[in-house]
Amino acid sequence: MPGISIDCVIFGFHDNQLKVLLLKIAGINEYGLPAGFIYKDEHIDTSAKRILNERTGLHDIFLQQFYIFGDPHRCDDNITKNVFENTNINAPKSNWLLQRFLTIGYYALVDFAAVNATPDYFSETCEWHDIHNLPVLAMDHSDIIQKALFTLRTHLRYEPVGFNLLPSKFTMPELQSLYETILDEKLDRRNFQRKMLSYGILKRLKELRKGVAHKAPYLYSFDLRKYHKALNEGFQSAW
Amino acid sequence: MPGISIDCVIFGFHDNQLKVLLLKIAGINEYGLPAGFIYKDEHIDTSAKRILNERTGLHDIFLQQFYIFGDPHRCDDNITKNVFENTNINAPKSNWLLQRFLTIGYYALVDFAAVNATPDYFSETCEWHDIHNLPVLAMDHSDIIQKALFTLRTHLRYEPVGFNLLPSKFTMPELQSLYETILDEKLDRRNFQRKMLSYGILKRLKELRKGVAHKAPYLYSFDLRKYHKALNEGFQSAW
Repeated sequence: MPGISIDCVIFGFHDNQLKVLLLKIAGINEYGLPAGFIYKDEHIDTSAKRILNERTGLHDIFLQQFYIFGDPHRCDDNITKNVFENTNINAPKSNWLLQRFLTIGYYALVDFAAVNATPDYFSETCEWHDIHNLPVLAMDHSDIIQKALFTLRTHLRYEPVGFNLLPSKFTMPELQSLYETILDEKLDRRNFQRKMLSYGILKRLKELRKGVAHKAPYLYSFDLRKYHKALNEGFQSAW
Repeated sequence: MPGISIDCVIFGFHDNQLKVLLLKIAGINEYGLPAGFIYKDEHIDTSAKRILNERTGLHDIFLQQFYIFGDPHRCDDNITKNVFENTNINAPKSNWLLQRFLTIGYYALVDFAAVNATPDYFSETCEWHDIHNLPVLAMDHSDIIQKALFTLRTHLRYEPVGFNLLPSKFTMPELQSLYETILDEKLDRRNFQRKMLSYGILKRLKELRKGVAHKAPYLYSFDLRKYHKALNEGFQSAW
């Protein structure tokens, strides 16, 4: 479909850092988000999943649209124009890729270790970058990442986050560390535990984490039935 | 811009009912949301404000995009096709209005009494309908309204809602009644008051509500500086 693209903000969690997957654009010293277009008969969610799969090799990933970016000047710094020039593709000025297009932002939370990062036709590399140390980004991609991060932080308040970002078994301090990394702030240990348990999405396992000093912490896993119910309905309101 | 439209879910509050503004489509017995398209050089937020203004006469209204609807079959039941046939407009089949288009959903909360409801070129009437008693809706407009309502209920949990829906001075029971109507459930009076006050967006006025039996309740108004700060940043997290 002309006039509209999809940009994916793909978050991974590694070494207590929040990472985002970026492409180095061919021929210029700027980076961009994994992006693509919508086939004529394709649901937009399917397009987003296809783009994510092409860049990461992953299937069945939780992916959520979060905003549509519709500033008429967002394409003034046009990646496609640069790429066309650098790769000697002759496109007429009327080509819609050289005109304004809207973009739909999707965000995904993925298992950092499972990603097989693959550049696309327009890019030289596809790599993880620390959210606190991003390179120069093309067009409005910096705004798109900030909006995705803001949305993710908001979602932490009313829907479950963490599946895909954590191993299948984790300790409460590991879960807290994930939340602290996303929120970029320290949380109170007891409040965090009380609140997380109140959501009813965790199963406490009979195993303890082995090989740690002092008291061995309990292991937890997500109760996926309740987790997905909460994803669809939100956590029960606090009213 | 071809291939993309905007639909506005305009909520009003009247007699403790949540209402939505709908257009009766010309020539068929179905209703639709106030809708329109995006001019070539127009920001999508500006398009939405223009559409809202054309249908209600209102300016400076809080309007929020909440979702983009991108099912390839959402236009199979094409309003435009019906209207073209009923108004004897001859459009070639290749006209983009007869093809698939995506739609961006915006929702607005408006002062019911201030609206001057005005039909558009494609419709016979423009009227308020109770959210619990909607007529037959065209295309996916029923889904769009349900998604807007779900979003509004979610937003009640983490950002301020109520300005534009209430008079400038209101009592705590009136504010609670608005929340109960939106959520479609009864809330605990003391919890509600404690929680609302904790957000710091209300000013208690020195006046009391006059002419009521028993103890006269305090009047409140929104502290608009804090209200808009909370709209941009969300309420402080409960973590």
